[in-house]
Amino acid sequence: MIALDVNGAHAGPAVVVEGARHAPTAVTLFGPAAEIADPPGDVVDAPVAIGGDEEPSLAVRSKPDASIVQAARAVGDGRAEALVSAGATGAVLAASLFHVKRLRGVSRPAIAVLLPVPGHPTLLLDAGANVEVRPEHLVQFALMGAAFMRAVHGAERPRVGLLSVGEEAAKGTSDVVEAHARLAAVEAGEFDFAGNVEGHAVTAGAVDVVVTDGFTGNVALKVMEGAAKTVVGAVRAAIGSSPLAAVGGLLVHGRLGGLRRDLDPNTTGGAVLLGLRRPVVIAHGGSSAEGIANALRLARRAVDERAVERTAAALEAAGTLRSAGTASVAEP
Amino acid sequence: MIALDVNGAHAGPAVVVEGARHAPTAVTLFGPAAEIADPPGDVVDAPVAIGGDEEPSLAVRSKPDASIVQAARAVGDGRAEALVSAGATGAVLAASLFHVKRLRGVSRPAIAVLLPVPGHPTLLLDAGANVEVRPEHLVQFALMGAAFMRAVHGAERPRVGLLSVGEEAAKGTSDVVEAHARLAAVEAGEFDFAGNVEGHAVTAGAVDVVVTDGFTGNVALKVMEGAAKTVVGAVRAAIGSSPLAAVGGLLVHGRLGGLRRDLDPNTTGGAVLLGLRRPVVIAHGGSSAEGIANALRLARRAVDERAVERTAAALEAAGTLRSAGTASVAEP
Repeated sequence: MIALDVNGAHAGPAVVVEGARHAPTAVTLFGPAAEIADPPGDVVDAPVAIGGDEEPSLAVRSKPDASIVQAARAVGDGRAEALVSAGATGAVLAASLFHVKRLRGVSRPAIAVLLPVPGHPTLLLDAGANVEVRPEHLVQFALMGAAFMRAVHGAERPRVGLLSVGEEAAKGTSDVVEAHARLAAVEAGEFDFAGNVEGHAVTAGAVDVVVTDGFTGNVALKVMEGAAKTVVGAVRAAIGSSPLAAVGGLLVHGRLGGLRRDLDPNTTGGAVLLGLRRPVVIAHGGSSAEGIANALRLARRAVDERAVERTAAALEAAGTLRSAGTASVAEP
Repeated sequence: MIALDVNGAHAGPAVVVEGARHAPTAVTLFGPAAEIADPPGDVVDAPVAIGGDEEPSLAVRSKPDASIVQAARAVGDGRAEALVSAGATGAVLAASLFHVKRLRGVSRPAIAVLLPVPGHPTLLLDAGANVEVRPEHLVQFALMGAAFMRAVHGAERPRVGLLSVGEEAAKGTSDVVEAHARLAAVEAGEFDFAGNVEGHAVTAGAVDVVVTDGFTGNVALKVMEGAAKTVVGAVRAAIGSSPLAAVGGLLVHGRLGGLRRDLDPNTTGGAVLLGLRRPVVIAHGGSSAEGIANALRLARRAVDERAVERTAAALEAAGTLRSAGTASVAEP
């Protein structure tokens, strides 16, 4: 059973409930019971929501009855197997850290986003949970991201790239250079370290996992979304700018619709918090019912494929548990 | 007269010389005299080139006869007014730091790139000169970028945004938070501080200048280029994937060509090094003759509009000279 936070989606609770109706999993709904008609699972009445403008940790502590807090507590207590919310990222992260709790040895859970790169979905992490990280955290991100891609997306031996300003091992900040050396020394049979990759690689389908700090990752994700939107808008403006081209535009319209679907965040189900004791999926705030259903599907798959257990095993095998990367990997 | 490095362009010296022929400025060509036919200006024979795989500082010191070094020396000596090269960024930067030299009080010259945002060209800096910076450097980048946009692109009162992971002043790394506080306190009548901007803003035309460190800026620039290329490729694939859509594609082709021109790096002339005693323009390595001509045009304009002198005045007015931002701006 998956705990579903009914608050938080821009479109309101009804869309979230509708999404749950189409998901192949049992759910318990945490939200305003008065607004939930014909629920597809148990309902825990939790009308209080945490908004995106509230300081997350403070809000989570001061609103123990908020839907996201109650849902996270249900997961932490073992009453639910995973958590799904379309609420504010900060609040979901804070509630999850408090109640779902970190996997043993993980100091910094990360936000992982599956980028809709045509033909080659690419996992980017950290997309914003940790704006400042140390090299050992980047190593953990690599292991967590690779384990997730193996478990949930069937990548047998994921290629992992470290985001930097050049492909050479010496390129980047001192932290990135050190992380590169540590990753090159990790004897992980379960992923290929592709070395440094540059920004181009994020959307080129060259690697399965792109590892970076939460500041750079958040900027990269939003630049990517912004650039895609700007280019699509420019294409549309170009097509609409002459009658002849407009006729052509009508003819290509159906195909562009398919592309729009490929790039739609609703398709991938949302961001995933990695490094916690249970799967947590953060659906896009602007999710449609289909987006919520896909987020639930993703959480269900993470549970069924034992993504958390496999992540823990991968971290342990690489020796980064507790020692956070200092024991079994070489210094640069 | 502008010193033009004839080596470095992927297409070879002939393309660079051809570009010089179409530029509205006097030039001196530094490159292999044997390969320069019918030169549009004086030629200084300098067949030695510095490649992108060489360590820049080392190469610049050990190859005093290299074309980029001789050209930079001509600018430093006052024999030329500005420098243009399509060579490796690192080599142009190193040669410029050694021979063109920093503007008084500027500790970290930055690479500024004018992004081809449709309808609203946006200057991004630092795009990679300094992978690690302190808050006072970010303040200098803001002042230098704003002065450049005023002088060269006619933005009367440029809006300057600080790239971060949220718009609130407290969002970002501790360095970004401190830079925000300092920028908010700068009494610069010559630009509007728009506060923090997120990655979306880079291509949204919301600000005239986006300020960030050279690591994030380089990643952002390449993610943007990569995403634009991926989306354009996907549009092309979508259009070509059915006979009917292909007919439509032919009809929109001309319009998409215009868009491609807008997004072409050759159009903007290249990156600019800010914070030096003379204008330095780094044309794209893949520049066409038109790209070289545009780079020379940009350098000419920077000279004519006294961009360097106005930058120095702006830095002095804001009190960041020598004291590097500590004297006349408030602490957070």
